[in-house]
Amino acid sequence: MSTAPQYDLIIIGGGPAGYISAERAGALGKRVLLVERDAIGGVCLNEGCIPTKTLLYGAKLYHHARESERFGVQATGVSYELPAAMAHKSKTIATLQKGILGQMKRHHVEVRTGDATLLGPGRVQVDGEEISCRYVLVATGGRAIVPPIPGAADNPRVLTSREILQIDTLPKRLVVVGGGYIGMEFASYFSAVGTEVTVVEMTDEIIPMLEPTMAKALRSQVAGVTYRLGHRVTAIDGADAGAPVRVTVAGAAGEDTVETDLVLLAAGRAANVDGAGLADAGVDLDRGGVRVDEYMQTNLPGVYAAGDVTGKMLLAHAAYRMGEVAVAHMFREDGASGGGSAAAQPAGTPAAAGLPSGSAAWPNRMRFGAIPWVVFTAPEVAGCGLTPSAAAEAGHDAITVTVPLQVSGRYLAEHPTERGSVTMVADRESRRLLGVQMLGSGVGEIIHSVAVMMELELRIEDIREIVFPHPTVSEALRDAAWAIEG
Amino acid sequence: MSTAPQYDLIIIGGGPAGYISAERAGALGKRVLLVERDAIGGVCLNEGCIPTKTLLYGAKLYHHARESERFGVQATGVSYELPAAMAHKSKTIATLQKGILGQMKRHHVEVRTGDATLLGPGRVQVDGEEISCRYVLVATGGRAIVPPIPGAADNPRVLTSREILQIDTLPKRLVVVGGGYIGMEFASYFSAVGTEVTVVEMTDEIIPMLEPTMAKALRSQVAGVTYRLGHRVTAIDGADAGAPVRVTVAGAAGEDTVETDLVLLAAGRAANVDGAGLADAGVDLDRGGVRVDEYMQTNLPGVYAAGDVTGKMLLAHAAYRMGEVAVAHMFREDGASGGGSAAAQPAGTPAAAGLPSGSAAWPNRMRFGAIPWVVFTAPEVAGCGLTPSAAAEAGHDAITVTVPLQVSGRYLAEHPTERGSVTMVADRESRRLLGVQMLGSGVGEIIHSVAVMMELELRIEDIREIVFPHPTVSEALRDAAWAIEG
Repeated sequence: MSTAPQYDLIIIGGGPAGYISAERAGALGKRVLLVERDAIGGVCLNEGCIPTKTLLYGAKLYHHARESERFGVQATGVSYELPAAMAHKSKTIATLQKGILGQMKRHHVEVRTGDATLLGPGRVQVDGEEISCRYVLVATGGRAIVPPIPGAADNPRVLTSREILQIDTLPKRLVVVGGGYIGMEFASYFSAVGTEVTVVEMTDEIIPMLEPTMAKALRSQVAGVTYRLGHRVTAIDGADAGAPVRVTVAGAAGEDTVETDLVLLAAGRAANVDGAGLADAGVDLDRGGVRVDEYMQTNLPGVYAAGDVTGKMLLAHAAYRMGEVAVAHMFREDGASGGGSAAAQPAGTPAAAGLPSGSAAWPNRMRFGAIPWVVFTAPEVAGCGLTPSAAAEAGHDAITVTVPLQVSGRYLAEHPTERGSVTMVADRESRRLLGVQMLGSGVGEIIHSVAVMMELELRIEDIREIVFPHPTVSEALRDAAWAIEG
Repeated sequence: MSTAPQYDLIIIGGGPAGYISAERAGALGKRVLLVERDAIGGVCLNEGCIPTKTLLYGAKLYHHARESERFGVQATGVSYELPAAMAHKSKTIATLQKGILGQMKRHHVEVRTGDATLLGPGRVQVDGEEISCRYVLVATGGRAIVPPIPGAADNPRVLTSREILQIDTLPKRLVVVGGGYIGMEFASYFSAVGTEVTVVEMTDEIIPMLEPTMAKALRSQVAGVTYRLGHRVTAIDGADAGAPVRVTVAGAAGEDTVETDLVLLAAGRAANVDGAGLADAGVDLDRGGVRVDEYMQTNLPGVYAAGDVTGKMLLAHAAYRMGEVAVAHMFREDGASGGGSAAAQPAGTPAAAGLPSGSAAWPNRMRFGAIPWVVFTAPEVAGCGLTPSAAAEAGHDAITVTVPLQVSGRYLAEHPTERGSVTMVADRESRRLLGVQMLGSGVGEIIHSVAVMMELELRIEDIREIVFPHPTVSEALRDAAWAIEG
């Protein structure tokens, strides 16, 4: 006697990949169980995107309050109060958690707190109870790597991004290990609120996804930070409150010591592949995480994975999309479009000229070529698609232009002393847009349009025809399209 | 004996339509003469977009300096100093003027200060000298209307947007006549820096291009302004410094008097059709300005018009595009693409699915359907395409959704007490996007992506597939696309 599975979908992990998948499957009328062992929202909401952006915004306002005389604003007695900022951070997280749980309820998703173990296709154990389902989505996320630096492990003065968001007094000095986007966001925040920050980065430049010229321009504008590029931390000494921590830093010219009060480890993140019974159930892994195909299927039938656990991109919005692609594929027989170019589309209408759908029978697959990213430093950097170097490496005969954001009247009015820029890359022959990178206050809200342009495979001439509102910083995209060769 | 014309193009007016046309024609190697009677940059740069945005940004910073305790920022003794703000405004204008003149030089455009008169096709007189050319572009702009209110004309206490940008002390009280976007931007600015502002608007709601629900939400959030909707100003008494100005306001319930220190007239703008010899040369006018076709041609051969003088849209970025369309049409035989879907495009590539090019032989024509607009109040409002009411009026079976911006984690973190929203309108059958309107801090930098989506005629399902960066306010567009019916 076969019984129907208890759920259509069990999701292991309540971060961005997990909760968006739950919402999408719930909207399709599916019976969904979401299991989260800790707080709903995952790293992004609880110890990543949201708390950092909340604090960074306060730091920006602190800077503005002190440095706005030229705009007519005089202020005396300006101070930064960490407890108030932390309270707002916690309140924001709580509000967003409530929002996610409200969405789960609205979509009839059952949410459980507990430990989930994948037993095999269609079988998940939650706190000892075996539950059956048609599909499983593994969305167990990732975590900060603690590099094997002597003196780093179990040192209360050595924190990851998780713990540093819980401190109650500002350190006078901070060493950030790692100049990637997480390290740089924290460096920008702490420096802005008065901490002396040193960033130690193994490679020759910060933020590897940035073209080196733009990375350098960013570095020179994140005020007050000291950089030790081409250096690595070889030892950390001192764990006692009241005494300084000594960080040994080694580079080509030898070793020296940096004294600090706190160390932040931002040396990379790893997929959470060692829990949830993945190995015992026989889930294949690749270099970075769970191995998946373009529909987010693992090697096990009916078992999908999405988000940081796949080791791909490690961005909340990539996780959202992976979850949607997985859900759309699971329920493709049931009319799920999940977005999806496969949805009924009147032939011959201009809309048929919409998103390129690829050649696969089920076109709603994961595409990584048009996923934008933002680093929320002050100033921000953002990008989508290929950098000039990456375009050349990919074999394109690329044309590139860099335009200062000062071409925008609004940018000049609002940020007269900042040095922002936009770099646009296109293919010389086809004139197709290959990528855009931007540096400057506010560019994080602009870059999404480049994702639209990239998905639509626009040519430079198409961008020139688009009307951008004046006076906005977004016009710099149009200026770049007009400034590029040809 | 026929001689070659002295210029390929003479442009009358150095505002946005004029200088962008000069730059585009110059980039094509054309001999261009730009004649401006006053300051380069037109209304937009000298007495419109740029000075207002400069002042509005200072007002925003002033608000932030006083109201950021929740973000950890405490300040005592915050004051607003108009002279500093005005100096920054003037410096910004001067820098941008230099930038435009630099672009003119770079593109070998000759710039003259003087009065230009159109004598006929190919003939322009500048300060008494007759000059010949292949084409003429009329870009003489527009000006504020001074309505025939008794006591308004020649009253030093009654200003237009032009004069109010030159004041040297803040008025204690201000009456703004007209609740359109210009009136509301000034109301927002003056109220934010401490002036008691009353807006008198003849119709029942501010900003006619906004859906009434959103206009109402804006009205309730532009702090401290008093609104007299459904009222008009019938008389203004008092012109002497030191004594109050009495503004008589009439509505359905009768008349009353508002005492004030200054009156701003923001009751509409008119095209500058009465100068530059347009009537004598035989240029046809229509209701709002110079009559043009979709290539910006007037009735006179080789005479084009662009920008506010056409009476169409009265937005700098619409003027830019009109100028580009005109230049591309003038020099279409010479390989000008000016953007332009007509440019060589490999058949069968996905790029061939780019901008819809219409059916005309020369497809680079003026389209008004995807021109975004922004009102830079605090909070901002922005839109592109049809409102729900306009969609219904246009005969669409429209589906509409309104989503609060609080769905965006970044918005909630940065603007916890603001009530922003995004309204998305689509066609029920084709699922095509018809329009978006947004209310909230920062939406002015987001709306350009809707222009891209509208130009590309995206369907709701296409928008769902686009990856928006997290955490940004721009994600609210994606949330709206998922929240809309179907």
